[in-house]
Amino acid sequence: MQMNQTETAFMEYVKKMESFNEALQLIYWDLRTGAPKKGVKQRSQVIGMLSNEYFQMSISEEMAAFIANLSGKKSELPELVQKTLEECKKIYDRNKKIPPKEYKEYVILQTEAENIWEEAHKKSDFDMFKPYLEKLVNYNKKFIEYWGYEGNKYNTLLDLYEPGVTVETIDKEFETLKEEIAPLIQKIQESGNKPAMDFLFHPFPKEQQKKFSLKILAQMGYDFEAGRLDETIHPFATGLNPGDVRITTRYHDNDWRMAVFGTIHEGGHALYEQNISGELIGTPLCTGTSMGIHESQSLFYENILARDRSFWEYNFEILKKYSNGQFDDVRLDEFYRAINKAEPSLIRIESDNLTYSLHIIIRYEIEKALFNNEINIDELPDIWNDKYEQYLGIRPKNDSEGVLQDVHWAAGNFGYFPSYALGYMYAAQIKNAMIGEIPEYDQLLKTGNLRPIREWLTKHIHRYGKTKKPLELIKEATGEGLSAKYLTDYLVEKYSILYNLE
Amino acid sequence: MQMNQTETAFMEYVKKMESFNEALQLIYWDLRTGAPKKGVKQRSQVIGMLSNEYFQMSISEEMAAFIANLSGKKSELPELVQKTLEECKKIYDRNKKIPPKEYKEYVILQTEAENIWEEAHKKSDFDMFKPYLEKLVNYNKKFIEYWGYEGNKYNTLLDLYEPGVTVETIDKEFETLKEEIAPLIQKIQESGNKPAMDFLFHPFPKEQQKKFSLKILAQMGYDFEAGRLDETIHPFATGLNPGDVRITTRYHDNDWRMAVFGTIHEGGHALYEQNISGELIGTPLCTGTSMGIHESQSLFYENILARDRSFWEYNFEILKKYSNGQFDDVRLDEFYRAINKAEPSLIRIESDNLTYSLHIIIRYEIEKALFNNEINIDELPDIWNDKYEQYLGIRPKNDSEGVLQDVHWAAGNFGYFPSYALGYMYAAQIKNAMIGEIPEYDQLLKTGNLRPIREWLTKHIHRYGKTKKPLELIKEATGEGLSAKYLTDYLVEKYSILYNLE
Repeated sequence: MQMNQTETAFMEYVKKMESFNEALQLIYWDLRTGAPKKGVKQRSQVIGMLSNEYFQMSISEEMAAFIANLSGKKSELPELVQKTLEECKKIYDRNKKIPPKEYKEYVILQTEAENIWEEAHKKSDFDMFKPYLEKLVNYNKKFIEYWGYEGNKYNTLLDLYEPGVTVETIDKEFETLKEEIAPLIQKIQESGNKPAMDFLFHPFPKEQQKKFSLKILAQMGYDFEAGRLDETIHPFATGLNPGDVRITTRYHDNDWRMAVFGTIHEGGHALYEQNISGELIGTPLCTGTSMGIHESQSLFYENILARDRSFWEYNFEILKKYSNGQFDDVRLDEFYRAINKAEPSLIRIESDNLTYSLHIIIRYEIEKALFNNEINIDELPDIWNDKYEQYLGIRPKNDSEGVLQDVHWAAGNFGYFPSYALGYMYAAQIKNAMIGEIPEYDQLLKTGNLRPIREWLTKHIHRYGKTKKPLELIKEATGEGLSAKYLTDYLVEKYSILYNLE
Repeated sequence: MQMNQTETAFMEYVKKMESFNEALQLIYWDLRTGAPKKGVKQRSQVIGMLSNEYFQMSISEEMAAFIANLSGKKSELPELVQKTLEECKKIYDRNKKIPPKEYKEYVILQTEAENIWEEAHKKSDFDMFKPYLEKLVNYNKKFIEYWGYEGNKYNTLLDLYEPGVTVETIDKEFETLKEEIAPLIQKIQESGNKPAMDFLFHPFPKEQQKKFSLKILAQMGYDFEAGRLDETIHPFATGLNPGDVRITTRYHDNDWRMAVFGTIHEGGHALYEQNISGELIGTPLCTGTSMGIHESQSLFYENILARDRSFWEYNFEILKKYSNGQFDDVRLDEFYRAINKAEPSLIRIESDNLTYSLHIIIRYEIEKALFNNEINIDELPDIWNDKYEQYLGIRPKNDSEGVLQDVHWAAGNFGYFPSYALGYMYAAQIKNAMIGEIPEYDQLLKTGNLRPIREWLTKHIHRYGKTKKPLELIKEATGEGLSAKYLTDYLVEKYSILYNLE
């Protein structure tokens, strides 16, 4: 469809906003991959300025006029313009309601808080981080008031990451998870059946870990001409544009799993961003539709595909070649059991595929309580530790392995955590739909031919970017709404076999 | 001094411009150090948008109003505001006087010309590049008319890179260089005395080259918390702000000199940018004052300090440790002679410390003649080759090793070349002043204690950023105006000893 003058001007305007955004994303990537410490203060000024430009454009009179002009004849607009308009209106409404001065202060606070958190985390010093956390929470409470809310106040924060998903839905699905997973964990603990693990922890040269990780990324279909792999303390993926989607990982000398599964996880995110339809470039739709759907892609690859026995039927021999001989006397089944070991632990990002959701549920419950004024910041470390003891039967010894372990709150990302568990649920549901259409799924894994899987995901998920909302996308891809059942079925079946449970 | 409202608004406005600039510099750094290929097209959009924002701010009505308002009471302004105003007015006049349409055409021409030059250089085909060069020269001739000129027309181009330095000054000093250096080169050639060089060219593991380079950088006083070292095909230094000054180098397996002297060169540039006074941050004064003064810092470290026998008295043993034994049977004096070898050659960037200035003088004489309509583009290859024969006694066999060797003209950078030789003269003059105040200079080099040297440079050069013009800075640092004498004295003394000349 031909665009008229207003439509073209609107899309040009939006393109400029996205350029600001891309510059910002690059600066963030740089800050995390090795920007010199002493330049950070001045860089924060640059971030503040660029964010402000973006922000001002999102709430300008010009934008208001575009929205007013185009909304009237929405049904006549080309689809891309229509969806872009919807997204811009959403951002407009969200940003217009925060006083500009507060927003600016908040952006600067975020950068400062992340730096302080890094140090506090190192020193296990919650008091150091506390005043920043308190400010961040208070800003977000104010924002909720500005934005308004339906039902629970926390819904407003959830909507930032998972549009359309509410406390009501999450409470229901998380209840299912707790009901099914907690007893399963207990059964496993009681069974006394423990896989041998010692062969996992041998010195595995970093360079070799990297080479193997790159090999798996290539198998997954990660396009190295449209990305790069770097090293950071906290791995992440960032899509600057579909032609530049960067991932990072970290290496542990005696635990190759951290780098390999970490890379696969970020690789899953990256495949999503690399395969968004090119026509969405330069619009706010050129990104994942929600954190949860994004996480479904990383968790599908990391937890489901790369913990499948068939996947290792192909890759175990390759791993052996890159290692220093640590697996020479290990059978595939022993290996498979070891990498799927389930045991309660303290650190979310090091936790296993079974207990993982409980880590998320703890954070969800704390956030929900925080924003409903049911707990104080001071109490956080204790509440955190109590919940770990209650759900997982273990208690952190310090705040570094407790409440300080995640960067999310330092970045002001409240409402984000539930996405991880939502993503896991989506992933299991997506896999279920996928094997309906790809019955040879197992055989593909066994031959290292992951291309049809990536293509299926691109067809049903990736390419749409943000043009479809999460629950809409899941419904179209799987034929039904979100259901925790696919995840619990998957976990119960898998772990019952692994641990010989009744 | 307290700032009033207009002054504060002006400085805020300027700070925003500098933030755009810093973001752009980071994007350029990223493009050169490993940005994925497929993201470049979209990244160019981002660069175009940010450059345009900066450009528009530099010539806006708002800027015009600031200049008009503040210029009237210039003497009452705080010094920082005054100097910032001068710089902004200079940029305003420069950008405002070129009709936007012509400027746009010129920018497109630059990109085309660089691409064509690359091919012409490969094919050694001057005719291919000629029409582009002609257009670039004609545009610059027009710009000179728009901008105006005093004395020689070429002065206007010189002023872009070396404010205040004119043809008159350069003619005089370059004459001295020619008079002293050309006979010295001839004497060396006639002496038949050639240092052994073969031990330089052995496999030296890249990682070891890097470790040694980092060691020297630390000795120089490069602040690693305010910078980082990366690898690129064309090494460079970029100062994003004084807390973030990055350098790059390149490694040649069989010639460690490329990485080590390259790193020292870029390190010299970096020390300048790292030590600019913090109060200049966020103004256009927070950078080196000219290309020549910048080059004086890199050349002082690369050519003077790091080619000094005393420097290697300390560092040769360290270099031996990092190498694979290639220097085990080499005496310090042999090594010292090898790294100071002088011999006429055709390619500027591969030339030595003695002949280098003549390469520059040739380019200067040609540019000056071009912009004074004394030669035609057609004649360039012959004139170039004649001059090489006359000054260096060697004649290029083709245009690829002749007139097509440098990218500068293809990029439209006329007036830039002289900065290299100016920098070398400044460097020798600065060293002379420095040893007047630091008589223990030699002893410092012999003990690897380079700190007092860096501190002297910071005190007399670095900290001022762009608040003093090049000749003003040199006069204050050395007590007199620019003089080629210090460079010729230094070269004559050094090479007479090295080659046992009368």
